[in-house]
Amino acid sequence: MSNLTRDLQRTWTKRRDEKARRLAKVERLAEGRVLPTESIVEALQALLAPGDRVVLEGNNQKQATFLSAALNQVDPAKINNLHMLMSSISRPEHLDIFERGIAKKVDFSYAGPQSLRVAQMLEDGVLDVGAIHTYLELYARLFVDLIPTVALVAADKADAAGNLYTGPNTEETPTIVEATAFRDGIVIAQVNELVDELPRVDIPASWVDFVVVADKPYQLEPLFTRDPRHITEVQILMAMLVIRGIYERHQVTSLNHGVGFNAAAIELLLPTYGESLGLRGKICRHWTLNPHPTLIPAIESGWVESIHCFGSEVGMEDYIAARPDVFFTGHDGSLRSNRLLSQVAGQYAVDLFIGSTLQMDGDGNSSTVTLGRLAGFGGAPNMGHDPHGRRHSTPAWLSLITSESPTVRGRKLVVQMVETFQRGNAPTFVESLDAIQVGRDAVLPVTPVMIYGDDVTHVVTEEGIAYLYKARDRTERRQALVAIAGVTPVGRQHDPRLNGRLRRDGLVAFPEDLGIRRTDAKRSLLAAKSIEDLVDWSGGLYKPPAHFRSW
Amino acid sequence: MSNLTRDLQRTWTKRRDEKARRLAKVERLAEGRVLPTESIVEALQALLAPGDRVVLEGNNQKQATFLSAALNQVDPAKINNLHMLMSSISRPEHLDIFERGIAKKVDFSYAGPQSLRVAQMLEDGVLDVGAIHTYLELYARLFVDLIPTVALVAADKADAAGNLYTGPNTEETPTIVEATAFRDGIVIAQVNELVDELPRVDIPASWVDFVVVADKPYQLEPLFTRDPRHITEVQILMAMLVIRGIYERHQVTSLNHGVGFNAAAIELLLPTYGESLGLRGKICRHWTLNPHPTLIPAIESGWVESIHCFGSEVGMEDYIAARPDVFFTGHDGSLRSNRLLSQVAGQYAVDLFIGSTLQMDGDGNSSTVTLGRLAGFGGAPNMGHDPHGRRHSTPAWLSLITSESPTVRGRKLVVQMVETFQRGNAPTFVESLDAIQVGRDAVLPVTPVMIYGDDVTHVVTEEGIAYLYKARDRTERRQALVAIAGVTPVGRQHDPRLNGRLRRDGLVAFPEDLGIRRTDAKRSLLAAKSIEDLVDWSGGLYKPPAHFRSW
Repeated sequence: MSNLTRDLQRTWTKRRDEKARRLAKVERLAEGRVLPTESIVEALQALLAPGDRVVLEGNNQKQATFLSAALNQVDPAKINNLHMLMSSISRPEHLDIFERGIAKKVDFSYAGPQSLRVAQMLEDGVLDVGAIHTYLELYARLFVDLIPTVALVAADKADAAGNLYTGPNTEETPTIVEATAFRDGIVIAQVNELVDELPRVDIPASWVDFVVVADKPYQLEPLFTRDPRHITEVQILMAMLVIRGIYERHQVTSLNHGVGFNAAAIELLLPTYGESLGLRGKICRHWTLNPHPTLIPAIESGWVESIHCFGSEVGMEDYIAARPDVFFTGHDGSLRSNRLLSQVAGQYAVDLFIGSTLQMDGDGNSSTVTLGRLAGFGGAPNMGHDPHGRRHSTPAWLSLITSESPTVRGRKLVVQMVETFQRGNAPTFVESLDAIQVGRDAVLPVTPVMIYGDDVTHVVTEEGIAYLYKARDRTERRQALVAIAGVTPVGRQHDPRLNGRLRRDGLVAFPEDLGIRRTDAKRSLLAAKSIEDLVDWSGGLYKPPAHFRSW
Repeated sequence: MSNLTRDLQRTWTKRRDEKARRLAKVERLAEGRVLPTESIVEALQALLAPGDRVVLEGNNQKQATFLSAALNQVDPAKINNLHMLMSSISRPEHLDIFERGIAKKVDFSYAGPQSLRVAQMLEDGVLDVGAIHTYLELYARLFVDLIPTVALVAADKADAAGNLYTGPNTEETPTIVEATAFRDGIVIAQVNELVDELPRVDIPASWVDFVVVADKPYQLEPLFTRDPRHITEVQILMAMLVIRGIYERHQVTSLNHGVGFNAAAIELLLPTYGESLGLRGKICRHWTLNPHPTLIPAIESGWVESIHCFGSEVGMEDYIAARPDVFFTGHDGSLRSNRLLSQVAGQYAVDLFIGSTLQMDGDGNSSTVTLGRLAGFGGAPNMGHDPHGRRHSTPAWLSLITSESPTVRGRKLVVQMVETFQRGNAPTFVESLDAIQVGRDAVLPVTPVMIYGDDVTHVVTEEGIAYLYKARDRTERRQALVAIAGVTPVGRQHDPRLNGRLRRDGLVAFPEDLGIRRTDAKRSLLAAKSIEDLVDWSGGLYKPPAHFRSW
């Protein structure tokens, strides 16, 4: 053996010993693995310690509200300087814990509703940001250098042994529990009810330390429901461009849609405009996305073979359960979503990502970060790039090859679909992203760009499509982009004399080049024009939340 | 509602009904969820149907040998044209099923030991290849367009209800079971034994249809054990270059190591050469890799904070169980590996990938595919690229920025470490990859490149380091690469008069530039020089398989 020696004094079970020490403190409170509802604050004070890394479940839709409220009630003199790991900062108490001094640092992915306050608290030094991640990279770091000490998660039901049933909103729960449980962390799950027999087991009891019945069911928001009434004719025109000029042209069979009315318009045109082009069975067969209600007509018309979901959507439960040939469901009949797996599938297994943004510069860089708001990007950057580790080919992927080199590879389609102006007349195309200033103000190490221009293959506006992947250099790229940027500051740089060459080289297509008449882009083309229509399409299985009902 | 109508005749439970039909056929064979060992062939004939998509578990290490042997015994007149989904084609019967006509098409990731026969059978039309994937993208497609009908998997133990304990080699089992179980596929698990109480539950019974006790334990191979006796002084020199010129320079704290003696040499130099540079605690703290025995000295010397594993390694079980502060272990004490999660972590959460290859061209493209062999690449392309969806920063990631643009981002370090000549004197650096010809012969849609040159940031040989990420254009990139390519056909194009500029611009570093004397690269620097040394370092906890023992 080498003359180096092992440190024989060192303990290798620090984490396990510390966990045992903490569990012993709550033994008198718990009945087996069940913590009484009213003891949760006391239990958290016993199970947490200053400086802990705490992963608090909160995706877009599903929030561990009982546990986050309880965390906000612990005594900051005892529990402080927590390092929070949260995919989404969604609720006021998520930030209150920083103001109260319970937590100090946060690593997160998305802060939509709280983005203004996050930026302010960062500026005031109340909160430190580790980094802003995509969902997938944040989950990844839970297994590397952000391993949690404690996980606070939400499930539908538990049995007394601690087995968990998450129901349709499985989402990120298994992932954050696995990271915590297998590194001697402490897993606490709030559940809506305790039952004798679970419909199915989503997380085995041997991964869970405590379950606690919440005072009320966890918060669940229908964030991905878009009312077709609000879809405009400009959006319908853009959707026609996408179907004709991208999906049909590149034979896109597997894809992800971002949320928003643009994507909803496409979904609602498949059974009408798409059908008239004879595209059923040829495009849009396999999806990774949340169960958007606006997909119902396409499903019912036989367009969709499979959908894997990040999460579920309130109101879609019965419809999903009745369509197991399309959705991933358990033997109990309800959806099994999985945010991590769906992000992996959306990154690697589909041919196209289509999303939208608030601002785009002349190089195609885009961001939803605008002045004063530090929103994060959720999953968009993960799906909105070309994964260089991909090695399998499809017709769509191969269709983006523009070189003759023997070592060339295909490319994922990354499409940005934007109107040239946002509501309130702010131009979408700008010389310089607001994100640059926001990044400087927040002293971020790099500008918070959502999708980088070099990853974008197509940009669609109401003016036409820029086929950026065909550009031979940065100048040509910019020429194609400004040609469809309308009368924005960027678009005004366009020289219309270039149009002939750009169209001939296939760098730009205007509606007429695709056989689309602007006057055909009518709301009558939508397969459903209202939430009520969607309910009808579903045969009454879709049950929209009250505030979407108008009839 | 629209005048379009739903197809009211359509069934939406085809998959579920078909599953029920098949399960009914084996009811008389099974006792609850337990199939008798001797009935497995009969059961497979009842549960499978021609054209099914069948995912057969076989990672590198762990093989569902009992089930693959049984599959080879079904009657091809009844069961044929199966579409196999296999991360690894490792065993002769994996190909026999194609020769017997039981299977026709395969989608896979790696075919190391069978690569010659795969190429031959493809040429003979006995087998169709869907595509060659990385592990992660193959798993991803199981949730999109390659959803399995049947999964044949391996676990250590089951209880009569069907709960599974995988033990340390959890690997891909949960992923392929989830894809199958939640789309009304049929999940059959071979187990080494049936027990009353499991040490822990890795997969809940509600995801499993049948368990069957195998006639003998599943095959498990120690594929990642490298005997330090075979590490050469050239490899030690290269390892010193990497530690000094890359890990120290870029402050690499989280990383993945490929398998092979090059990486083993680095691991064994950390407690000696690395220690002498004062780097403990500063570099190489967080790892995603299999539990390489050559990491034991670094772990014992306090270098390693965490390791997340793709799989386990035979002989490392007791050592891992005694080091829960470092490894991910269950409350039963044994490792929890997870190939998908570790691939996600290796892609997104670490700063550096270092691997090796058999051939590299002047643009830095590399492949392990050589003439006549269609090997696939396993996980290397997934970890050996810059994930453009990454948004969090680390000092290492930021250190690769070379531009002043406000929308610039950092970059993952992708390092290739190769000697200029392979064993048998074949040059590593070649004008044109053999993979191009292999791809043409096999009529693959693109050349099977393992790592693309544009993803590689550093190349290390015994001559020095090429810092490719600093090159301003393709010419400069090539100049840097040929400068360290020795006397290979590519290296002979080097003009030594460029050396001054290349060194000054930081494009190339030779050992002397890094303060390394070639004569210091001695085997005496290795923290362990033999398997026996590794056992000593482990305090006897590491129990190498018999064929690695020489004492």
